[in-house]
Amino acid sequence: MKKEKIFIDPFDDLGYAKIDVHREKRKGFPEVVFCAGKTKKQIVNIAARVFKFSKRVMLTRVTPAVQPSLRRKYPHGTYYKDAQIFYVGTQPKKSGLISVLTGGTADIPVAEEAAVTAEIMGSKVQRIYDVGVAGLHRLLAFRKKIEVSRVLVVIAGMDGVLPSVVGGLFSKPIIAVPTSVGYGLNLQGITPLLTMLNSCAPGIAVVNINNGFGAGYIAAVINKL
Amino acid sequence: MKKEKIFIDPFDDLGYAKIDVHREKRKGFPEVVFCAGKTKKQIVNIAARVFKFSKRVMLTRVTPAVQPSLRRKYPHGTYYKDAQIFYVGTQPKKSGLISVLTGGTADIPVAEEAAVTAEIMGSKVQRIYDVGVAGLHRLLAFRKKIEVSRVLVVIAGMDGVLPSVVGGLFSKPIIAVPTSVGYGLNLQGITPLLTMLNSCAPGIAVVNINNGFGAGYIAAVINKL
Amino acid sequence: MKKEKIFIDPFDDLGYAKIDVHREKRKGFPEVVFCAGKTKKQIVNIAARVFKFSKRVMLTRVTPAVQPSLRRKYPHGTYYKDAQIFYVGTQPKKSGLISVLTGGTADIPVAEEAAVTAEIMGSKVQRIYDVGVAGLHRLLAFRKKIEVSRVLVVIAGMDGVLPSVVGGLFSKPIIAVPTSVGYGLNLQGITPLLTMLNSCAPGIAVVNINNGFGAGYIAAVINKL
Amino acid sequence: MKKEKIFIDPFDDLGYAKIDVHREKRKGFPEVVFCAGKTKKQIVNIAARVFKFSKRVMLTRVTPAVQPSLRRKYPHGTYYKDAQIFYVGTQPKKSGLISVLTGGTADIPVAEEAAVTAEIMGSKVQRIYDVGVAGLHRLLAFRKKIEVSRVLVVIAGMDGVLPSVVGGLFSKPIIAVPTSVGYGLNLQGITPLLTMLNSCAPGIAVVNINNGFGAGYIAAVINKL
Amino acid sequence: MKKEKIFIDPFDDLGYAKIDVHREKRKGFPEVVFCAGKTKKQIVNIAARVFKFSKRVMLTRVTPAVQPSLRRKYPHGTYYKDAQIFYVGTQPKKSGLISVLTGGTADIPVAEEAAVTAEIMGSKVQRIYDVGVAGLHRLLAFRKKIEVSRVLVVIAGMDGVLPSVVGGLFSKPIIAVPTSVGYGLNLQGITPLLTMLNSCAPGIAVVNINNGFGAGYIAAVINKL
Amino acid sequence: MKKEKIFIDPFDDLGYAKIDVHREKRKGFPEVVFCAGKTKKQIVNIAARVFKFSKRVMLTRVTPAVQPSLRRKYPHGTYYKDAQIFYVGTQPKKSGLISVLTGGTADIPVAEEAAVTAEIMGSKVQRIYDVGVAGLHRLLAFRKKIEVSRVLVVIAGMDGVLPSVVGGLFSKPIIAVPTSVGYGLNLQGITPLLTMLNSCAPGIAVVNINNGFGAGYIAAVINKL
Amino acid sequence: MKKEKIFIDPFDDLGYAKIDVHREKRKGFPEVVFCAGKTKKQIVNIAARVFKFSKRVMLTRVTPAVQPSLRRKYPHGTYYKDAQIFYVGTQPKKSGLISVLTGGTADIPVAEEAAVTAEIMGSKVQRIYDVGVAGLHRLLAFRKKIEVSRVLVVIAGMDGVLPSVVGGLFSKPIIAVPTSVGYGLNLQGITPLLTMLNSCAPGIAVVNINNGFGAGYIAAVINKL
Amino acid sequence: MKKEKIFIDPFDDLGYAKIDVHREKRKGFPEVVFCAGKTKKQIVNIAARVFKFSKRVMLTRVTPAVQPSLRRKYPHGTYYKDAQIFYVGTQPKKSGLISVLTGGTADIPVAEEAAVTAEIMGSKVQRIYDVGVAGLHRLLAFRKKIEVSRVLVVIAGMDGVLPSVVGGLFSKPIIAVPTSVGYGLNLQGITPLLTMLNSCAPGIAVVNINNGFGAGYIAAVINKL
Repeated sequence: MKKEKIFIDPFDDLGYAKIDVHREKRKGFPEVVFCAGKTKKQIVNIAARVFKFSKRVMLTRVTPAVQPSLRRKYPHGTYYKDAQIFYVGTQPKKSGLISVLTGGTADIPVAEEAAVTAEIMGSKVQRIYDVGVAGLHRLLAFRKKIEVSRVLVVIAGMDGVLPSVVGGLFSKPIIAVPTSVGYGLNLQGITPLLTMLNSCAPGIAVVNINNGFGAGYIAAVINKL
Repeated sequence: MKKEKIFIDPFDDLGYAKIDVHREKRKGFPEVVFCAGKTKKQIVNIAARVFKFSKRVMLTRVTPAVQPSLRRKYPHGTYYKDAQIFYVGTQPKKSGLISVLTGGTADIPVAEEAAVTAEIMGSKVQRIYDVGVAGLHRLLAFRKKIEVSRVLVVIAGMDGVLPSVVGGLFSKPIIAVPTSVGYGLNLQGITPLLTMLNSCAPGIAVVNINNGFGAGYIAAVINKL
Repeated sequence: MKKEKIFIDPFDDLGYAKIDVHREKRKGFPEVVFCAGKTKKQIVNIAARVFKFSKRVMLTRVTPAVQPSLRRKYPHGTYYKDAQIFYVGTQPKKSGLISVLTGGTADIPVAEEAAVTAEIMGSKVQRIYDVGVAGLHRLLAFRKKIEVSRVLVVIAGMDGVLPSVVGGLFSKPIIAVPTSVGYGLNLQGITPLLTMLNSCAPGIAVVNINNGFGAGYIAAVINKL
Repeated sequence: MKKEKIFIDPFDDLGYAKIDVHREKRKGFPEVVFCAGKTKKQIVNIAARVFKFSKRVMLTRVTPAVQPSLRRKYPHGTYYKDAQIFYVGTQPKKSGLISVLTGGTADIPVAEEAAVTAEIMGSKVQRIYDVGVAGLHRLLAFRKKIEVSRVLVVIAGMDGVLPSVVGGLFSKPIIAVPTSVGYGLNLQGITPLLTMLNSCAPGIAVVNINNGFGAGYIAAVINKL
Repeated sequence: MKKEKIFIDPFDDLGYAKIDVHREKRKGFPEVVFCAGKTKKQIVNIAARVFKFSKRVMLTRVTPAVQPSLRRKYPHGTYYKDAQIFYVGTQPKKSGLISVLTGGTADIPVAEEAAVTAEIMGSKVQRIYDVGVAGLHRLLAFRKKIEVSRVLVVIAGMDGVLPSVVGGLFSKPIIAVPTSVGYGLNLQGITPLLTMLNSCAPGIAVVNINNGFGAGYIAAVINKL
Repeated sequence: MKKEKIFIDPFDDLGYAKIDVHREKRKGFPEVVFCAGKTKKQIVNIAARVFKFSKRVMLTRVTPAVQPSLRRKYPHGTYYKDAQIFYVGTQPKKSGLISVLTGGTADIPVAEEAAVTAEIMGSKVQRIYDVGVAGLHRLLAFRKKIEVSRVLVVIAGMDGVLPSVVGGLFSKPIIAVPTSVGYGLNLQGITPLLTMLNSCAPGIAVVNINNGFGAGYIAAVINKL
Repeated sequence: MKKEKIFIDPFDDLGYAKIDVHREKRKGFPEVVFCAGKTKKQIVNIAARVFKFSKRVMLTRVTPAVQPSLRRKYPHGTYYKDAQIFYVGTQPKKSGLISVLTGGTADIPVAEEAAVTAEIMGSKVQRIYDVGVAGLHRLLAFRKKIEVSRVLVVIAGMDGVLPSVVGGLFSKPIIAVPTSVGYGLNLQGITPLLTMLNSCAPGIAVVNINNGFGAGYIAAVINKL
Repeated sequence: MKKEKIFIDPFDDLGYAKIDVHREKRKGFPEVVFCAGKTKKQIVNIAARVFKFSKRVMLTRVTPAVQPSLRRKYPHGTYYKDAQIFYVGTQPKKSGLISVLTGGTADIPVAEEAAVTAEIMGSKVQRIYDVGVAGLHRLLAFRKKIEVSRVLVVIAGMDGVLPSVVGGLFSKPIIAVPTSVGYGLNLQGITPLLTMLNSCAPGIAVVNINNGFGAGYIAAVINKL
């Protein structure tokens, strides 16, 4: 039975938020600010603290209504509208290719959240959108382009079938993302999530519905290995 | 173990959409544009590409807000308001009768989506609305009219009972469509869907909640056999 | 407002069962005896009454434990073991081809229930088993064989992806059957059912989980049109 | 604001059970012993106490394994095997007709629980079994017999459609009972329960899945009004 | 095996609706117009046809937005605002007492729908609101008033406990109505519905969530026996 | 078997509400007015009655739209905006420390409802917000502060992990509160609720989603022991 | 931002289990061995290690099949058969009264798990079984006995109504335990759990279905405050 | 629009199974035989075909009942009993460290399936079992050992909390596996699955309940990058 000293990592206490300024050291990337459910004032203040420590800050789920508050504070920040991501800081050097595929056009906002996240974390990203299995040849036409990637992010709503088909064709690790695109028994994305978790093709792991950020993040982490 | 060459079918790449221009050859009908979740600009551009290749294009879930953009581009197109379908192209020659039945008045929009789809795909359609089992004689009164159809599309919300009763009376294939009409434990259409999938009467298959298009499509395909 | 006389169709009353001897006239096929939940004695008696009127009787969900009771009564009956179907009567003349596809080997019992039902109802059946999308080329190799069918019955457990892929490739009506093959979030077949109901490919309708009989029945009805 | 004295009603304390000997006075019928989840010894002891006070005792969910323990104690008791009810006491005078209908043969055990309960509580009961809507004329043939009842108990598994159809035809109060008869999406009776709760026909109220006792009880209470 | 002529009952066909003008004869009360999901024009037209045949018409789920269209046509009609019921016709003679109880204040709209329905159908109604079990003595104080009723309608949201407690105290038939009052795991009324269906107290049957009309209807039917 | 007189406790009948003025005596705190689903007029009148008897009244779920009506009547009342609580009366003497922890910033409104409730009921409260396990050291840094509390209220949305971790570290009773903060499979708070109910760490009990009031109430009751 | 050394607490590594021998210091009670899912050998070895450090060990979910292995090793251990608890060690001094109530007889095993746990942790326990609301007077008869307890554990299956009623009557903190006693829509205990979480009566917190241990544990922790 | 020839990959047709002998080329590992739902004869035959082509074969879900059939055919095969894996072939050279962590002892079978899969696919594996958060120091003690891994597989039942905590501490990609270990609201593993999908810590992706194979597979694929 051994005993061991550990150090309490530093953090920055705003009362309503405790900024984990040690996160970059521990996880390789500073704390990302998830804006849903926070007030504009909270968002701007938290962003300021992260930026102060890490000289860069990434914010997700930045609606068009929230964006101006950030723009005012960071005129040189970049707002990725489709991705609803705001980023302040220098762009990293990019290496290692990730392919982001979608089943349909309506999945693109989630795909962009994944793609932009992976890019900001230092990955090259190739976008291949609307290659759902209703027209399978569209996917097969990209076979060679996909094969040169290191990680695949595969995004689909409706029946969520695309990752299974992609998993049957390629040997790369696949991060599957269900989206809430669909109606009726799509159940706000639960159906494609279930499909993806039951895939017969090995080599697939899944993130939460519409969680483009989570997919881009783990894809970038894998890509860096 | 045999080997075989296959050709990659053509498609048209808009970046955010890859139009499956080969679909008509493969499926017998050009790609139908599902408008929910797409921007007006995407809808109009995709429609233009489909029309260019197939000389006709059908769009579903066209809300009154989207319709004017299509109208401007296709002044001679037809907007089926109840069905939320926009169609550009010549009407096909119609043959083979499909009956579309509903349990109630509020199911009509879904029924119209089914009926118009089947008509555009070349089927004759007979509409028999509001013949739910609370007044069974209303259905029985149409017995002879129904018996001359080749396929039945039976649509119901609430308890979803109508297809079971119709299935007990007629020998034709039945495509059942649950609707989200109802409240409380209707569960946005899950209840009638479950009812229909558990029907004791043989000869019934089911499509997604409110999926009038899917019902009209498969009914027309069956009708053409 | 019209009035009309209708005749009460005949039936045969055993107390615990009322045999619908008029069914063959109304639906084109005699009442099929669903054995689950009935006692051996009830099964044999009901079968006898159907046989008496229609000179043939088909029973489903006939477990190996129930089979001997039927065998004793009908030494010339046929027991389809995989399909759990018992049939007494002459085989019909068969016409029109139905293809029955499965995603995996474990789906075969459900597939056999569908195939045997369709055969007894007068359809030719072609079995194409274990062509799931984890090895897509297995399906593509049967492309020509499938294209000559009039109706497709597509059966899958796990993620239930096969009907969507088949629906993207072929123009024939597809009856999709989810099976309870799988584990964890397969949810006893609910997941493949949801996948199939949300398919992006048009031309698909769905029956209850493991309902091979229902799929074979409606496929045969469609085939006869 | 008024104040009022109330008396604590008597009960009989066995430690593991507190027999509500006052129930007959309050509810018009002595406490019924629900045997599921109780040991044989508990069942016999509780029955003894109820019998001591009320000179009659009714027990439900009495499996064939439990029955002999009761038989030994009450040689003159009646065991209703299909209903799984054991009754000790004199039969009441019966008046007022209740009809108990089922959709199929497999629903009969639940129906018998309802019928026997209502009989022991003093109602006349008419059994009309296997009149499901797959052969609607079987139900219509009993129209006159049903119309002379005061209350209807309508029992169905599978799709649970029968109460809706009965509710469209008759003006009597209907107690609907879903059963767990079925498979796949029957969901152990949840589907027929949902169907019954969403019925378009007015005049229907529902009890728990397989709750024949509850249906028979309230039907008898209504019948006595 | 008997044969029997039956007459097709009359109905009135508007295309989008088939008015069941025979309902009053069959069910003892004319067709009630459920307004949710219907257009104003449909509502007014359907009401006119029912009124023409039956000299009275009752409409439910009449929102304040729909009410003026009815008012214009029927200046002498009565709009029960809390109940969202519009009634045109003479008031029936009332007899037989029904008590309508609620657990809380927010359940009152559902309770009023039940109470007004029962009154229009000829029952006397006694309202006893906000007697939930958090203050049990409030219920006990009304013991005598409740005991003189013939039927009880018991309405509750949140935990849905009230019918069980009432069922333990009174011998009258209880129609329980769950409401969607609550938050979080109330699940829009599913929780009180489940509670009510599992009640240990016998003599309770349940209707759909918020279905005050259904409860009032069956209570009135029972009351008339 | 004993008999016993009990007195009916007093209450105050407004028709639509029966104020339980005896609650303070029975439960140690006057009836708290839950405002959701009540009209402004009902709220003000009920508050007036409670205040008249108890000389203090607490109201929860007081939206900014409702607040002015209360303010007008009680200019000296306190409106806790984050907590959506309105309180009229003197502040109690506070003793015994409760710690209220949250996983994130967006959980604060629920936390404030808990904290203010506990304070008004006489407990000292220490707020420790945004100490979720993504940065575990933030929680560990408050170890000593937490150890001096008598009761912990631990609030989390998303994955609901915080109570399990807190339960592994501290010996005090923990009241866990799931919040609806999150998206996709958070399922409006069902996921953190399930997590909390399955916690491996002993000493945790759970209240309804977003039920800050319930958590603060029981924490204060425990604290007073 | 502060830094702080913390010590890694000791544990005992068996490979397949890491005994948390520091738990008693941290939580006030040694690690309790949950036996479900562990082999007999693992159970005996883990128990031995806990006993070695703490001179006492408590094991839960000890089925009659597992018990002899423990008995052989610990001939002086106590096996509480109803509670399925095995305890080795001296009995603590007991103080502070906890009342354990159940709705029915079948809930007793869960109640015993709660009661024995609380006793072993040093609380006095009073058992009040089968006081469900179908006979409310049974509960009221114990009013005085209950009022002298410090904490209440209230256990119910079926509709789960008892905690709400108890919560309306008593001011003590209530730990509610749903059980899987029931059938049909009891949903293996989900229904009473939902009922308890939505209780209108304040002062109630809930543990997992059948989790008698968890309830007894937190009740004892609260009792010790 | 481009056209492209593709070759149909070879497969081996047994009728009931179509062996994807091309899988190794496409996916880097031969088809793995999932034994659940297959007969012994099917399993042995399929294994023989895979082995013939690839000189190695891995089978999962090999119960002790199935194992002897394989053993007879492959006396030199290895049966990993805890993992229920049977492997025939030479062991690969192993490189790159994967850590497999579990929350508890009962999760070990799933963990072994993951560990053995990854080893057979050429990864080094470090097992760290029973480090759940109820005793957090057990996890912290392995901090350095974990930090040298390239990929983490984190397995938990009950509340499924472990991956979130691990995700907060380490920068490596995490594959989370929910297990069905637990009771009541664990819902056969749905609860830990939901927890893991909603984790606040980035860098986590999830596989199906109890899917140790899938986790080990994708971890090995990532490890090889």
